[in-house]
Amino acid sequence: MNKLDGDEETFSVDLEPVGRRAAVTAGMTLLGAAQSAGVEIAAVCGGAGTCGKCRVQCIEGKLSEPTAVELRFFNERELAAGYRLACQAVPLGDVKINIPPGSLSTPQRLQIEGQETEIAPDPVIEILDVDLVPPTLHDLRSDTLRLTGALADQGVDRPFFGQPVLRSLSTVLRDQEWSLRLALRRLPTVCGQEPGAAHSEVQPLREVVGAIRRDQPVVGLAVDIGTTKMAGYLVDLVTGHTLAKAGLMNPQIAYGEDVVSRIAYANDHADGRRVLQERLIEGLNDLAGTLCAEAGIDREQIVDAVVVGNTVIHHLFTGLPVAQLGAAPYIASVSEALDIEAEYLGLRLAPGAKVYLPPNIAGYVGADHIAMLLATEAYKVTEPTIVLDIGTNTEISLALEGELLSCSCASGPAFEGAHIHAGMRAAPGAVEYVQIGTDGVYVQTIGNRPAVGICGSGILDIVAELRNAEVVGHTGRMDKNHPRVIPWDGGGAFVLVDKDGTHNGHDLLVTRRDVNEIQLAKGAIRAGVDVLLAEAGLTHDDLGAFIVAGAFGTYLDLKSATRIGMFPPIPLDRFKQVGNAAGSGARQMLISQAQRRLAESMVEKITYVELTVHPSFTDIYMDAMVL
Amino acid sequence: MNKLDGDEETFSVDLEPVGRRAAVTAGMTLLGAAQSAGVEIAAVCGGAGTCGKCRVQCIEGKLSEPTAVELRFFNERELAAGYRLACQAVPLGDVKINIPPGSLSTPQRLQIEGQETEIAPDPVIEILDVDLVPPTLHDLRSDTLRLTGALADQGVDRPFFGQPVLRSLSTVLRDQEWSLRLALRRLPTVCGQEPGAAHSEVQPLREVVGAIRRDQPVVGLAVDIGTTKMAGYLVDLVTGHTLAKAGLMNPQIAYGEDVVSRIAYANDHADGRRVLQERLIEGLNDLAGTLCAEAGIDREQIVDAVVVGNTVIHHLFTGLPVAQLGAAPYIASVSEALDIEAEYLGLRLAPGAKVYLPPNIAGYVGADHIAMLLATEAYKVTEPTIVLDIGTNTEISLALEGELLSCSCASGPAFEGAHIHAGMRAAPGAVEYVQIGTDGVYVQTIGNRPAVGICGSGILDIVAELRNAEVVGHTGRMDKNHPRVIPWDGGGAFVLVDKDGTHNGHDLLVTRRDVNEIQLAKGAIRAGVDVLLAEAGLTHDDLGAFIVAGAFGTYLDLKSATRIGMFPPIPLDRFKQVGNAAGSGARQMLISQAQRRLAESMVEKITYVELTVHPSFTDIYMDAMVL
Repeated sequence: MNKLDGDEETFSVDLEPVGRRAAVTAGMTLLGAAQSAGVEIAAVCGGAGTCGKCRVQCIEGKLSEPTAVELRFFNERELAAGYRLACQAVPLGDVKINIPPGSLSTPQRLQIEGQETEIAPDPVIEILDVDLVPPTLHDLRSDTLRLTGALADQGVDRPFFGQPVLRSLSTVLRDQEWSLRLALRRLPTVCGQEPGAAHSEVQPLREVVGAIRRDQPVVGLAVDIGTTKMAGYLVDLVTGHTLAKAGLMNPQIAYGEDVVSRIAYANDHADGRRVLQERLIEGLNDLAGTLCAEAGIDREQIVDAVVVGNTVIHHLFTGLPVAQLGAAPYIASVSEALDIEAEYLGLRLAPGAKVYLPPNIAGYVGADHIAMLLATEAYKVTEPTIVLDIGTNTEISLALEGELLSCSCASGPAFEGAHIHAGMRAAPGAVEYVQIGTDGVYVQTIGNRPAVGICGSGILDIVAELRNAEVVGHTGRMDKNHPRVIPWDGGGAFVLVDKDGTHNGHDLLVTRRDVNEIQLAKGAIRAGVDVLLAEAGLTHDDLGAFIVAGAFGTYLDLKSATRIGMFPPIPLDRFKQVGNAAGSGARQMLISQAQRRLAESMVEKITYVELTVHPSFTDIYMDAMVL
Repeated sequence: MNKLDGDEETFSVDLEPVGRRAAVTAGMTLLGAAQSAGVEIAAVCGGAGTCGKCRVQCIEGKLSEPTAVELRFFNERELAAGYRLACQAVPLGDVKINIPPGSLSTPQRLQIEGQETEIAPDPVIEILDVDLVPPTLHDLRSDTLRLTGALADQGVDRPFFGQPVLRSLSTVLRDQEWSLRLALRRLPTVCGQEPGAAHSEVQPLREVVGAIRRDQPVVGLAVDIGTTKMAGYLVDLVTGHTLAKAGLMNPQIAYGEDVVSRIAYANDHADGRRVLQERLIEGLNDLAGTLCAEAGIDREQIVDAVVVGNTVIHHLFTGLPVAQLGAAPYIASVSEALDIEAEYLGLRLAPGAKVYLPPNIAGYVGADHIAMLLATEAYKVTEPTIVLDIGTNTEISLALEGELLSCSCASGPAFEGAHIHAGMRAAPGAVEYVQIGTDGVYVQTIGNRPAVGICGSGILDIVAELRNAEVVGHTGRMDKNHPRVIPWDGGGAFVLVDKDGTHNGHDLLVTRRDVNEIQLAKGAIRAGVDVLLAEAGLTHDDLGAFIVAGAFGTYLDLKSATRIGMFPPIPLDRFKQVGNAAGSGARQMLISQAQRRLAESMVEKITYVELTVHPSFTDIYMDAMVL
């Protein structure tokens, strides 16, 4: 906190997950703080405390005591968890606030679209209608034996019943009067059991997932969990069609913007791993609820799920240790594909539903990258192809015929708007496109609102334009004589939007330091690409295609990206922006066993290149930072 | 509650699990109530409220508000759960109190001894020492891949890692500096996977259970859960030796004395099933703790477990529905053997330990009976043999060469001391042996204390002696002219112990109604035996052996049992009292895979006979009730 003007005390309010900081004077509410920063919290009643829409959660710092109004809206458990009404709560110091998606009046832009690839449905689930003869005093078989008998009549041998299914089976059988539609999970075929072998010596061939409704489609859930955002898809397992899509912020964001800080959170708090896992599981349960509501389907109809994410997210989601991912040599606990009982994780789906997690490649190249390689069909390219997904961490693969080289580079959160003076995520008011002409600066914001800050695609454009207009040089140095460059922190700052055009009435600046952040980020990405090419003995001229996936990759301007040297100078028509390919890959694995097998065999063909130990990495990186 | 003598109000205090009822006048503490009933609650400080030893739990009814003394000993959660100090709490009405074992000054007699059969150890667990090469930036394999590689070097292919193990593996590997002693679980052998088949198409051959200490034996836990009591054994899996034994009351007893009332509790309470399961799991965790402390072994060394119990206990333990067991035709949810992750059940053992539950035979013949048949080797008798375990429910098998006939009869809780006027469980002060001579009555109590009540073996003796002395006739009618018979409730009562010899200074009575309870109980058992014999076309003269298992069966007087016709009149040397055979069978299955297979194949050879639909059951039962 600071004392300004002698008297007035101000506190900082960090607004998550939007990533904006507001300064408030003592007595101002959280709602006022958010509004001053251009973050639009829902306040239907205009702050009168009657609508209860402006729910926020206090993550750090101290707020005023809950008011009588708030006590009407929250129970004890919610208050203990830090839930408050933004229109009532007043910061008593520096605070950090999480704004749930439902409390934002304009949702953040979430990337859920991805190319649909036509994959023939071949799900792990099959559906079977079964009618049983009810028990009598002369037929006392147990419920499982009775069902096993009825299934055998239909050619299904030795079904397996997991604990979550057994816990409801007897009740369901009687409620449904011995006539069920069952979802069964195909299990690996085995042979060789001895004649007369007892129960536990033979492997079951089908696992019962649950009884499902006959009047609704049987569906699966595919989720791509990013460090910042999650994208969920509800897919009809019979037709393969996507019935609903939805995006949600990753609720872990309140515990750290990037995976490194979440590892630190997990390490530094006794129940940190559990808390981070619970937040993700709650998020997925919410997401499943939203998707089911949209499609008009009961959540018990979700009989299978696929979840992809980077390796740290994968470990946090499954509750695995992450400490060893936080220090060199950055080792994954598990790299093999996993099938985990949804109930064990706390997911509320069909009782016996499992979550399939494709294999991880390395500590910083995860199952989401596998999903992306699958969706982009990188495994069957005939010309050398780069496939990458830009984020806080950027995973890059160079696909050669049948073989893949992969690496990961720490591109940092600059493209998420972090570490940028006026940075923010892709939300309303974010500058997303810029042109600097001789006659001035043209700026376009998301939603055409007064400028609030600069998002990832915007900062990329700005640096390209600044370089183009010779406001910055090769090394990133700013021309301090330029009329729009003002003195700032030694390096200068470019006035992108005058105070008249901004939300808060202050100039919107791009600083020398911002330019440097972008140099580091783009340099890391380009170095990754160049090291992979060097490993394969190729140059960028040999590339037949350059596939850019992910949210940021969808919105970035390819010309700007090549102009600043983030991408190599190849013809623009060789670039492909494919949207959320990880989500598409997840959907493919959801509906197709063959795609799961493909993902698992692909891992065997990938050579992971650890950049930090590559002999020419430093040289290549230094070159790559040049603008 | 009653008003006595015009003024003084009295309340009844039911003391569980001992099964005694005390009457208290207003203002008397629970400690006083228990003492007046001869139940010895620990009170080191003499009721001053300083030792905190007399912890009890209020299950039903209203007590005085907690005193300041109690607030020092209990936290809010404990108070909410009804925990109180017996020396402080005063009943405000009729109450039901549970006395935890630790609060009883003299423990109840629990049956944990059973015949040791020599079984060659052939456990499902094997032990392997593994040394791994630590990861480097040039060897980035995930922890599971690294361990899989090291295991392959030792001939173990495709190990499986369950979630509970994965959650600790990376931490353990680093803590133990890449050198581990592993417990592995043998899995069924499979064949036939395609060459080049991917990960999830092949079945693992070993499952990792956990890393164990090298300086302690690797052990398993066998538990026989009875309706009233539990017996636990800690067994060295390499030598097969029992390292520790312990008994504990079944904590569910506070929710109903017999399985029928527990089913009712589960049905009538929203979370009844969960509560009953949690109590059992807590009990098992306590038992494991006691056993480990006795043997000086960490509980993480427990890498495998076997649990046996009747079908209702089995279902309550595993969290399965029990409603269908409470109404005809009394169907089990599951009859097949189960292997359940200990962690899933809430048991704290080695992370990947599983609990093996042998198959159930029917709704009222459970896995404990299978264990007993295994331990008594009933499956390989050459002469017709009866094997039975007397309890609230009595399970009886007639073993013929290779085949078994089994039934269950509702013998009621009379032998547990319930429904008997002065009945109690086998605790200090219980009459356990009686002789009625012409010169008087000789009575022996457990611990040679002043008589408090009559336990199961005592009441059996008494009825036999009363019949012998012609105090009661064939039909159970009491000779009202006998000098020790006093008028009572229309049917009379026999003064077993004069008030001078009893704890509470009142005559200890055996009523006509008590005799009738025993007639019903012994009639049911004998009818079961006779129906099975009839089914096989045999008479009791054909019986080569008559095996009596279980706690009550150990203490009962065989002569008395045959004299009242509970057992058929065969030579005494054909009877065998084998103690807790179910516990012995559980131990055998713990150390031997072959014994598990035997148990599973035995079920196939059992024909269950439902007594209630047997054509001559009613006639046989009527005959069997005659004394």
